[in-house]
Amino acid sequence: MTFSDFKHFLLGKPFPTSMEMHERLDKVRALAVFASDPISSNAYATEAIMSVLIVLGSQALSLTLPVGLGVAGLILLVISSYIQTILHYPDGGGAYTVAKDNLGQFPSLLAAAALLTDYILTVAVSVSAGVRAVTSAFPETFDYRVHIAILAIVIITWMNLRGVRESGTVFAIPTYAFVVGVFLTIIIGLVRQYTLFGVAPLPVLEQIVPPVFSPMGFAYIWLLLRAFSGGCTALTGIEAISNGVQAFKPPEARNAVITMVAMGTMAMSLFVGILLLSSHLHLVPEEAESILSQMTRAITGNNILYYWVQFFTAAILFLAANTAYQDFPRLSSFLSNDRFMPGWMQNRGDRLVYSSGIAVLAFIAVLIVLIFQANEIAMLPLYALGVMLSFSISQTGMFRLMGRIAHLKPGESLKTLVTRIHYEKGVRWKQALNAVGAVVTFLVFIILMSTKFMEGAWIVVLIIPILVFMFYSIHHHYEQVSTALSTHDLTPDSLSEVANVVIIPIGDVHRGTLRALVYAKRISKDVRVICVINSPEMKERLLMRWKRFPKLTRRVKLITIETDYRDVITPVVKYIEQVNNSEFPDQLVTVVVPVFIPTHAVGRLLHNQTAVQLRWALQRYKDIVIIDVPIHIDSKM
Amino acid sequence: MTFSDFKHFLLGKPFPTSMEMHERLDKVRALAVFASDPISSNAYATEAIMSVLIVLGSQALSLTLPVGLGVAGLILLVISSYIQTILHYPDGGGAYTVAKDNLGQFPSLLAAAALLTDYILTVAVSVSAGVRAVTSAFPETFDYRVHIAILAIVIITWMNLRGVRESGTVFAIPTYAFVVGVFLTIIIGLVRQYTLFGVAPLPVLEQIVPPVFSPMGFAYIWLLLRAFSGGCTALTGIEAISNGVQAFKPPEARNAVITMVAMGTMAMSLFVGILLLSSHLHLVPEEAESILSQMTRAITGNNILYYWVQFFTAAILFLAANTAYQDFPRLSSFLSNDRFMPGWMQNRGDRLVYSSGIAVLAFIAVLIVLIFQANEIAMLPLYALGVMLSFSISQTGMFRLMGRIAHLKPGESLKTLVTRIHYEKGVRWKQALNAVGAVVTFLVFIILMSTKFMEGAWIVVLIIPILVFMFYSIHHHYEQVSTALSTHDLTPDSLSEVANVVIIPIGDVHRGTLRALVYAKRISKDVRVICVINSPEMKERLLMRWKRFPKLTRRVKLITIETDYRDVITPVVKYIEQVNNSEFPDQLVTVVVPVFIPTHAVGRLLHNQTAVQLRWALQRYKDIVIIDVPIHIDSKM
Repeated sequence: MTFSDFKHFLLGKPFPTSMEMHERLDKVRALAVFASDPISSNAYATEAIMSVLIVLGSQALSLTLPVGLGVAGLILLVISSYIQTILHYPDGGGAYTVAKDNLGQFPSLLAAAALLTDYILTVAVSVSAGVRAVTSAFPETFDYRVHIAILAIVIITWMNLRGVRESGTVFAIPTYAFVVGVFLTIIIGLVRQYTLFGVAPLPVLEQIVPPVFSPMGFAYIWLLLRAFSGGCTALTGIEAISNGVQAFKPPEARNAVITMVAMGTMAMSLFVGILLLSSHLHLVPEEAESILSQMTRAITGNNILYYWVQFFTAAILFLAANTAYQDFPRLSSFLSNDRFMPGWMQNRGDRLVYSSGIAVLAFIAVLIVLIFQANEIAMLPLYALGVMLSFSISQTGMFRLMGRIAHLKPGESLKTLVTRIHYEKGVRWKQALNAVGAVVTFLVFIILMSTKFMEGAWIVVLIIPILVFMFYSIHHHYEQVSTALSTHDLTPDSLSEVANVVIIPIGDVHRGTLRALVYAKRISKDVRVICVINSPEMKERLLMRWKRFPKLTRRVKLITIETDYRDVITPVVKYIEQVNNSEFPDQLVTVVVPVFIPTHAVGRLLHNQTAVQLRWALQRYKDIVIIDVPIHIDSKM
Repeated sequence: MTFSDFKHFLLGKPFPTSMEMHERLDKVRALAVFASDPISSNAYATEAIMSVLIVLGSQALSLTLPVGLGVAGLILLVISSYIQTILHYPDGGGAYTVAKDNLGQFPSLLAAAALLTDYILTVAVSVSAGVRAVTSAFPETFDYRVHIAILAIVIITWMNLRGVRESGTVFAIPTYAFVVGVFLTIIIGLVRQYTLFGVAPLPVLEQIVPPVFSPMGFAYIWLLLRAFSGGCTALTGIEAISNGVQAFKPPEARNAVITMVAMGTMAMSLFVGILLLSSHLHLVPEEAESILSQMTRAITGNNILYYWVQFFTAAILFLAANTAYQDFPRLSSFLSNDRFMPGWMQNRGDRLVYSSGIAVLAFIAVLIVLIFQANEIAMLPLYALGVMLSFSISQTGMFRLMGRIAHLKPGESLKTLVTRIHYEKGVRWKQALNAVGAVVTFLVFIILMSTKFMEGAWIVVLIIPILVFMFYSIHHHYEQVSTALSTHDLTPDSLSEVANVVIIPIGDVHRGTLRALVYAKRISKDVRVICVINSPEMKERLLMRWKRFPKLTRRVKLITIETDYRDVITPVVKYIEQVNNSEFPDQLVTVVVPVFIPTHAVGRLLHNQTAVQLRWALQRYKDIVIIDVPIHIDSKM
């Protein structure tokens, strides 16, 4: 089985380019596709708030509710702002596009860097949280959480490389199943809490955790801000719909807005419901069992509903990871198309997916899972930062856009890089909304950064500028390449001439070197065989063998270089350099290298070290052409 | 600074081959050079016995002395046998040489595999034990033991790559300082123990450790055997002198024998002294402090002699590791010379040392230190096995040799592969000694293997056959290569002809591809440019650019292959294969590949993915010659 067969077995038969799907989603399936990320945040957002407040002791957990409501308010604000984005960028307006269109190159790259960081974290965090749902239900699997997480990433990656499209049906089942399960739990919980219909009241768990310390004044506010930052992870994924407006059935923008509102309502009511009940139940965050699991267990007992919720929590979290597999390669290919990322990021693989982007994403996500040992709570300080920065940049871009629209007269329109925008009324109000959105998300970004700086946010603060620098470096490089390759002022005479000389470095006279010699004689009259001699015996043996083939070696110069050092590369390179510089300056000089090709890979370790080193050393000469003449060796090892 | 400059800065200027040193050692310095390994075993051998006996409780530690004396007896036996080896192989007779000479290929390879395993373990064990001497003196460094151990290996490796010769003076200081320090401690200890000269008696530490279990009958004997196996680590390094007879001043063999006797006396008296005193003091093995450290502290207090002993224990242990840096590369180069290891194992580096062997040794030793977390006691079960096996094989070889000598008549001599051996008297007695040596060391090997099998010896039992298999595979491969390259029945006509065709796969028309075109036209009249087309726009752009250079493209065939897949490699390879098979069967077909060479390495990530893939795919065709035409791109990143 060749490598190619194996690849086809694993990934399926290649798709022709013409087969590209243009599936459109109705609202019900679109909601399932895009909502998995923000809805799944409910699996950890409340927990993230509580795990900060718990240092004040279990009494302070009553603060979870007000802090959580603050987060819910922020969600509302961001959703309202994003509805504007959808309406003005119906072709899909990610933060990168909006910023590029309205703010210029640097802000757009900043947004892109922030988003890429966050997409990677989406995979790591969602998969780890999904694994926590599994280990909460089956505590005996806790020791294998890193293995399970990596296995999950491998499976998701494999599915994406095979080319799973955002097919709504697959997504619909776990998303709605999760929503239904949690809603049911919340309703049962509320009914029992207020002892409606005469049911037994909820057993309130009076777990008392003493406060670690009791901060006063500023330290207290600081702690509340940290708890708030924790809750902000609930905002991740909200921007997904604005990226994918084109996936909706027409009228695209209108359907997208409706879906956005539905998603917001759903995500917020789940969030508030979980907040209410977990506060009422006096739940306390634990390492091995999630808050959602504790809450469900307390309300429903260990019955089928509990396992339903846990199972679909894991499923929706894995799906949330899957959305990053759409977003990351797509944004990377945009960047690649604008020459800010390597060209191969926009190559579609056999199955019409951006295979390179998928592979890069998976690789980095696995690294992060390993570093953080699949503990998503430890990753959260890094997580929402990128999203907030991209929100803020995107809102600022919308603010600029609204300003430009405000200058239009009725009937006029303006052309942006991406789309054409018409006059509209009430723009100043919308602009004000975007201004509030931009300022608030920026403030939240600052809060996130400062409160979580020491816990890991510094990593993101370091990585985003590095990524931006990388984008610029790559761009600069590609511009130099296009100058170097330009045929603009090219005349046939400006191309290097070809020198009539061929140099063959050899170590010995054998079938391989003689084959190279035959080839060299075929393309030039001036063939020079060069051999570095380490000892008199070596010279003697070489000359003896050389003389055995008078017909082949006729009119070929044999040059021996005697050296008292073991390094054979330097003298050969020196000789070639000298021929190039003094005999044939600025002409292409040809070097023929006999290359062993053992049929088994293991055998390759034993050979060609010298050929590889020579190739490496000759790379820095711009006029050296290297010819590999292969000699196959059948080795059965 | 180029890579080459950096290398010279790190390793020093290259040495010419003629500068090879032939330093001869006098007995005093030779003792220091060769004895560091066996003498340094005293730092852990007693401990290895005690750490087994302790499960019987601290009372059972009184058994340390008899068990240790058994080990001392074994040392005596092995030394006596090795004196015979020195006398008969004055050119240096390692187990590999002796076995090859007298027993044949398989036993010699078995001995080589055992020795290589052991040399690697010598580095890991000695360095870890050296680090334990440091952490015993400064307990606050205990957490950094792995770092210190790796740093020590890096420094030793660096020194060896620079070409530290076995210069006696460097070795003499720590070896003799260690011996003097420990002897002083032992003498003070004995004086105080027997309260000679009216000194205060030794404070006996009555640490009571209860037995973990109390075995009876066979289990009891099994435990004693395990303790004995532990002590056998004291035997490692005894064979070193027999490998290096040529390093002695003449008369080499005689001086080597005298040094061997001196070394044995010294190592054994240290061993017995430590045994006596640590038994008397009722010392108990501890994780963080070695027995030698405990003993010295108890006898001398925390004064200068204590730090002297600890410091030189560390020093002599690091030196012991250094001996493996001589032995491993030397044996590897022997094997390489006999074509059982890759050819590059016998290449001398710039500084006349076997750089590859040193690098391989260091790499594996670091791995082992990491796996075992620098805990040499955990490594010991793996350690002495290889040495015992090689002892046994070497003694068996000597037994065979003595048998052959016994058949000689006075005045006759026999020629072995390595040397000429003369008639001698009393050979049967020597043969009997070798027989006892072979049998006893083999028994010890069996004891070691069975008692320590579960604790790690199985790893060695697994690795030795794998190494032997590897030796044979490499040998087999090299024989096939020599057949393939043989010029024995070679006639000029039996070499492949060169087809008059050049194929250039391109992605676009630019300066790089045009440069390749110029080159190709220079060497052939039948030039075919092939381009895989993914879209109608691409074809249009290509043809437009192609037509802009009528002079260059005249008489060149442009072949476009339209495909609905993104894979461009397969169609190109298919076309080349078809040209090769149908138009020019069994002739060399030339493919010219334009290669971007960004001047900065980072830029290389962005280019040539396709060129690399194409080269890889073409490797399996035996008649495809690949020409790299470089185009340099100056990128400042």
